Amino acid sequence: MRYKLLIEYDGTNFVGWQRQKSGLAVQEVLENALKTALREDITLFGSGRTDTGVHALGQVAHFETNQNLNLFKIRESLNALVRPHLISVHEVQQVTDDFHARFSAKERSYVYQILNTPFPPALLKNKAWWVHTPLDIKLMQEAANLLIGKHDFSTFRASECQAKSPIKTINSIQFEKSDHLIKMHIKAKSFLHHQVRNIIGSLVLVGQKKWTVEDFEKAFKGKDRRLGGPTAPPEGLYFVSVEY
Amino acid sequence: MRYKLLIEYDGTNFVGWQRQKSGLAVQEVLENALKTALREDITLFGSGRTDTGVHALGQVAHFETNQNLNLFKIRESLNALVRPHLISVHEVQQVTDDFHARFSAKERSYVYQILNTPFPPALLKNKAWWVHTPLDIKLMQEAANLLIGKHDFSTFRASECQAKSPIKTINSIQFEKSDHLIKMHIKAKSFLHHQVRNIIGSLVLVGQKKWTVEDFEKAFKGKDRRLGGPTAPPEGLYFVSVEY
Repeated sequence: MRYKLLIEYDGTNFVGWQRQKSGLAVQEVLENALKTALREDITLFGSGRTDTGVHALGQVAHFETNQNLNLFKIRESLNALVRPHLISVHEVQQVTDDFHARFSAKERSYVYQILNTPFPPALLKNKAWWVHTPLDIKLMQEAANLLIGKHDFSTFRASECQAKSPIKTINSIQFEKSDHLIKMHIKAKSFLHHQVRNIIGSLVLVGQKKWTVEDFEKAFKGKDRRLGGPTAPPEGLYFVSVEY
Repeated sequence: MRYKLLIEYDGTNFVGWQRQKSGLAVQEVLENALKTALREDITLFGSGRTDTGVHALGQVAHFETNQNLNLFKIRESLNALVRPHLISVHEVQQVTDDFHARFSAKERSYVYQILNTPFPPALLKNKAWWVHTPLDIKLMQEAANLLIGKHDFSTFRASECQAKSPIKTINSIQFEKSDHLIKMHIKAKSFLHHQVRNIIGSLVLVGQKKWTVEDFEKAFKGKDRRLGGPTAPPEGLYFVSVEY
């Protein structure tokens, strides 16, 4: 039987979703909790990796077992077993055998959060990128609109990216501002390594008026990472949800 | 000359606003930063104490010095000097000599935040009270409306409260819900010790239908702390702003 987990985590103290020798991963904590709860070795398949420091509101993962699980009880057990780590299992569902957290995904949604204040964050420490110079989000939205659709995203692709092709299709990018908090909502079937952080890193240059929208377009169309802006820090990035 | 500070802090790792022998207080960190920046001993007068673990979005404090300060530079210095503590000075303003952060206050606003989910918090750990049983906020609002105006709040007053009288005037209480997050906005000229946490502790009993609105009214009118519900935990409470 195949089960799907819906998972929230605070990425601050993890090396990311995927098991690594360099430190503790969310996957490792959850697999250990599943092993204790189910008394068997369990492998979790996540819908996507997240980097060190990146958060998740709705990461999805699946696993297989021959056991018939009580969905309510298993959630309760997992949430007790993962303590004190900041991971919360929102939902456990049974799914059909053809469901795959990674390969069945139709759309992934991320939010990138910026605190745009002249003073540093206190309550949002590690939860947003602090940009202290004022940002013009109208210009950022205008530049972002150039990315919608199917394009070569080499300018926003990490050098260590393992994808076969730099071609991706972005479905939407929407900026939203409330007080000093700026959120960029971005949706695509899948993303290149560091793609969202590299995009927002360049869009911030536009928002700060260090780049014009035309500079941004030129960098994007140049299809070369060296033409892009800096990679934005991980703490502003949230993996929001996956559509299947 | 008198200066006013507008201050945000994450209360998790502080014993509260006011200097204590038992641990580090926000006041202490800021007074030390002011001493370093101004090269003189400075006493800060806060608009109100906050307990261990209680947060502030807009605490106000004032201090006096003979120095003519550059408001921009002093804010930058203080925000650098308080690191790595999660305190952020939003604003430094010069005020007239008759301004007193505590005694000139006309209204104080607090928010109490509840995460109402069957699963524990990850990203909101230490930032909200986790109540895992469903809450009916219509009933909570109905009970809260009984508190508006001038009343004897003995039922919601901590035994260690030092106020001369249990009579206080609550100007407004408004509940708001967005997804799983419930916020209670409460405004009054001043509050008794633990008043907000004791009120929400009893309102949650109403929301859980362990108490009827009539039970709540009876407890309130009984003017005895022993009739009230439990004190809600500090991590849900935010000192939002002060009006002068």
